[in-house]
Amino acid sequence: MSGPRLLAFAASFRRNSWNRKLITLAADLAREGGADVDLADFREFDMPLYDGDVQAEPGIPPGAEEMARRVAAVDGIVIASPEYNFSMPGTLKNAIDWVSRVKPMPFRGKTGFLLAASNGQVGGIRGLWQLRIPLEGLGVTLHPDMYALPWASKAFGPDGRLVEQERLDRLRVMIQRYLEMARKLAGGTALNPTTGS
Amino acid sequence: MSGPRLLAFAASFRRNSWNRKLITLAADLAREGGADVDLADFREFDMPLYDGDVQAEPGIPPGAEEMARRVAAVDGIVIASPEYNFSMPGTLKNAIDWVSRVKPMPFRGKTGFLLAASNGQVGGIRGLWQLRIPLEGLGVTLHPDMYALPWASKAFGPDGRLVEQERLDRLRVMIQRYLEMARKLAGGTALNPTTGS
Amino acid sequence: MSGPRLLAFAASFRRNSWNRKLITLAADLAREGGADVDLADFREFDMPLYDGDVQAEPGIPPGAEEMARRVAAVDGIVIASPEYNFSMPGTLKNAIDWVSRVKPMPFRGKTGFLLAASNGQVGGIRGLWQLRIPLEGLGVTLHPDMYALPWASKAFGPDGRLVEQERLDRLRVMIQRYLEMARKLAGGTALNPTTGS
Amino acid sequence: MSGPRLLAFAASFRRNSWNRKLITLAADLAREGGADVDLADFREFDMPLYDGDVQAEPGIPPGAEEMARRVAAVDGIVIASPEYNFSMPGTLKNAIDWVSRVKPMPFRGKTGFLLAASNGQVGGIRGLWQLRIPLEGLGVTLHPDMYALPWASKAFGPDGRLVEQERLDRLRVMIQRYLEMARKLAGGTALNPTTGS
Repeated sequence: MSGPRLLAFAASFRRNSWNRKLITLAADLAREGGADVDLADFREFDMPLYDGDVQAEPGIPPGAEEMARRVAAVDGIVIASPEYNFSMPGTLKNAIDWVSRVKPMPFRGKTGFLLAASNGQVGGIRGLWQLRIPLEGLGVTLHPDMYALPWASKAFGPDGRLVEQERLDRLRVMIQRYLEMARKLAGGTALNPTTGS
Repeated sequence: MSGPRLLAFAASFRRNSWNRKLITLAADLAREGGADVDLADFREFDMPLYDGDVQAEPGIPPGAEEMARRVAAVDGIVIASPEYNFSMPGTLKNAIDWVSRVKPMPFRGKTGFLLAASNGQVGGIRGLWQLRIPLEGLGVTLHPDMYALPWASKAFGPDGRLVEQERLDRLRVMIQRYLEMARKLAGGTALNPTTGS
Repeated sequence: MSGPRLLAFAASFRRNSWNRKLITLAADLAREGGADVDLADFREFDMPLYDGDVQAEPGIPPGAEEMARRVAAVDGIVIASPEYNFSMPGTLKNAIDWVSRVKPMPFRGKTGFLLAASNGQVGGIRGLWQLRIPLEGLGVTLHPDMYALPWASKAFGPDGRLVEQERLDRLRVMIQRYLEMARKLAGGTALNPTTGS
Repeated sequence: MSGPRLLAFAASFRRNSWNRKLITLAADLAREGGADVDLADFREFDMPLYDGDVQAEPGIPPGAEEMARRVAAVDGIVIASPEYNFSMPGTLKNAIDWVSRVKPMPFRGKTGFLLAASNGQVGGIRGLWQLRIPLEGLGVTLHPDMYALPWASKAFGPDGRLVEQERLDRLRVMIQRYLEMARKLAGGTALNPTTGS
């Protein structure tokens, strides 16, 4: 049985983003678990701020079309996202807003797993709770567990793994659980009004 | 292939609760879809207000133990809940608080589907968004779609079905989708620290 | 100029609750700042689980009537609340649900300040974000700052003050700011449909 | 006594945005109530997607500096915001994210009032609940009442007022209440660590 196909990215444009390091590690662990992972750079999905007039003419921007294509091609999405001001980054919400306008809307029926790294003690988990809302509203079945990495500046070793073995093991187990869910739900379960079944 | 085992209840003590009518219909539709449904009356889970001193001595109350047993025995939980003051009912959160103290904690690894009936136009969906938080935090994989029934006083026919065929069809399809998810995920995918895999 | 009248309580029935210690300290600091504080024990507001049939007959229970009277008599409410399962305690939401049915509904036009103590590192702040929703929905103007006390078991000295001077100063300043807001807004600003202005 | 100074804008770039019409009306009503209103076009605050590397070099973009200046110059902010995907628009969150990096951070100590227009029956209120989180987290004291305008395409008359007198009266009263709060709290009450009192 082949593993699930996943799209993974960090919702940060910053070159030295902790979430970039975390998603790279998560993608490695997912591949070790049998997944076929498309690890994207958030810059590949660069797009303007959402504007209904732009959507009408000239239409959905290329970066959003690209993200929609890459979401449509997989069974699940894995996002490592920083927390900005107690919520998700505007940049990530903007990408979700554009992609939600693409027909057929690609998020519906996908599974998802969320992670956050921060250099404080809370680890960005509050932002992920806000991020669940648009994703679930768009029909993504999110794994209930979320992985938050606090004190990120001291967390990674030179090999990109986590220095603390216990944290690494916990992340590996969470990803294994998510892969199991992504495999079982591949094909989707959310309501699709056009097929009706 | 046998259908999933489900526990279904309305989070209301009121005899003529719209959510009671809605969960009865949802249970019927789930049975028609092959599920084995334990339709409970919320009064069977009557318990005092949570008190840490009571938990210490004399211990978890019988109503919470009963609810924990019934949750532990199924693959998924289906809850129809009213919205009180823009959030979930305190009564339902109180039951979750007590049951979350039972060892082993029975919510982890279950799936869930949420519904709400109200006699206004919003249909109680805002309360369900708040209800997702403790359930997902406790390890329940919730179906992304939620069913909200507005104007409940005019919605039900004498047979307990919905008068509007379109609404009934939409509920049936949502439940079919949830049953598919509940069947595929039976056995659980959330992280269980004690087994570690 | 006289200080604002405040009702303060911890949303916990437990005798040795950290939130009880925290609200006692907060009430002391508020009195030092000129407030007239009614420090209540949550047990004074003991009431059954909300049941619409009970509300209809025999009516609002005495504990809810008592809480409504005490809320109605003040300019603002100060609540120290534990976090249960990533949200507010069911017990506190149950009290809000009952009191919201009392006419005239006493929360409207009040100000409020929220605190949380926990014995972990997050300090209960996630639960307070959920608690804001019903209170604001009912017309309470909440101070934007919230005070979260982590590692509560080591935080208090024998005099009930906080061992770390910096934490104590921060709490004192927050309370002074809230008192200023409570004083300025005494009399209420939320929409009251019956008076219309 | 002079009225409060307010910054008002709709969080939409679309020329025919319903929220643009709603904020124009709200600004008119606020001026009738004595406020000094700076009615801005969201396009004046155009800025790129947030990028920590851009912030480091070349720095905060002009659109964010402009918004920060305009926020800093007033007592309160009034925002009419569409709901995108059950939450706030990514564009608005992006603006908040940039402005929150300006020193001194201009949101702290301001008051705010939120509105939403939509062409459906829910009126966008769910998005406003998510929008409260970053604003309150940044120290804005938000009025508890929020104004949601459903079925916006039929709501406005040719004079820009609301066709239904009752809706218009309700909006006028809410704004009067907010003006009262904005006047009383002008000068700020949120904690400012640099002044300490």
